[in-house]
Amino acid sequence: MNESRKKIAVLGGTGNLGLALAWRWARVEHEVIIGSRTEEKAQQAAAEINRRTCNGSAHGKENAAAAKAADIIVMTVPFAAHDATIETIKPYLSGQILIDTTVPLKPPKVNVVQLPETGCVAVQTQVLVGDKARVVAAFHNVAANLLNKDTDIDCDVLVTSDDLEAKKEVMQLSDEIGCNALNAGALANAIAAEVFTSILIHMNKTYKTGHAGIKITGL
Amino acid sequence: MNESRKKIAVLGGTGNLGLALAWRWARVEHEVIIGSRTEEKAQQAAAEINRRTCNGSAHGKENAAAAKAADIIVMTVPFAAHDATIETIKPYLSGQILIDTTVPLKPPKVNVVQLPETGCVAVQTQVLVGDKARVVAAFHNVAANLLNKDTDIDCDVLVTSDDLEAKKEVMQLSDEIGCNALNAGALANAIAAEVFTSILIHMNKTYKTGHAGIKITGL
Repeated sequence: MNESRKKIAVLGGTGNLGLALAWRWARVEHEVIIGSRTEEKAQQAAAEINRRTCNGSAHGKENAAAAKAADIIVMTVPFAAHDATIETIKPYLSGQILIDTTVPLKPPKVNVVQLPETGCVAVQTQVLVGDKARVVAAFHNVAANLLNKDTDIDCDVLVTSDDLEAKKEVMQLSDEIGCNALNAGALANAIAAEVFTSILIHMNKTYKTGHAGIKITGL
Repeated sequence: MNESRKKIAVLGGTGNLGLALAWRWARVEHEVIIGSRTEEKAQQAAAEINRRTCNGSAHGKENAAAAKAADIIVMTVPFAAHDATIETIKPYLSGQILIDTTVPLKPPKVNVVQLPETGCVAVQTQVLVGDKARVVAAFHNVAANLLNKDTDIDCDVLVTSDDLEAKKEVMQLSDEIGCNALNAGALANAIAAEVFTSILIHMNKTYKTGHAGIKITGL
């Protein structure tokens, strides 16, 4: 049993990134609650994770119920659904850590940075939730297809927050699943990781790979 | 003699980044014109470079005269001087490649991203110069103190432009001085490299180093 077992809700947890993160946390025996717009899909995804881990750590709920039950909430919904999902869970926030992984991609030109009018997504998230959650931004640049395999991750995770304790906790959760976490400073710095994803998508195409990532050198 | 010898004007070439780039290009026998607000300071910097390279490839001029004489113009002035410098050289632009290295740092909080109202600096540069120059953004993330030494550079250079030929030429100029160039897509993607510098400054302090850099993995 994981001695520091957390209840982690992964909203949008039926998508590629959410499912992969949820599987990795379930594998190290955190309690994982897959959140989805429909409970049935959430439960199907949880069952898939439980088949892979054989430890029964995952279950599924609607997004709002998942958020309500969790210590830590992870946003892995598409950018277009970001604000609406925040509104859905806002009544159930009570000081939890809210990990925002959202990258502001606007199809079809996902390989070109298109900055939202409100600027940094994670800062906007903190504005939307006020003091009802402690926003930490992370996991923008790591390839979901790598995360979803039993393989090493050659990509650093840039972790930003204005709450130092919350940031440290998320860095530990990242390290536990094989993603080397780095303290990347204030929440406003999340914009660098958010917009970087378009460059990685561009490079995946230009250099014909499927998992471009980023490492900080010289540390 | 460098067979593809270029005339490269480095505006703000008396500063740390400009001087280091100028020295590296002079060393591989490009003709380097240091640009500064005062011709005297430009000539002093050029003399210093010539002492180091012993090949007399560098000379110095005022910024406008330097730009006028060059095939390739490199902007290495502080962000606060960026727009004014563009205005100074604009009358002398006639289709040159304009390499913009500018990062939007606003002292004293240089370790926190502070996005300019106009967004991406390099895109704004292209707006300011119109069709009088082909803007390529590069060299935002490489530590000047490393560039200025005879050492390997463990940092990729993200090169962005809307002009593919200009981008290729700048990638070659980067590779020639030991900076591994990567095609990072459209000029709008320059914002990722621009804002990333605040994260590297933050990491230099947090992880007690002086030359945090960035490598793309998985290519």
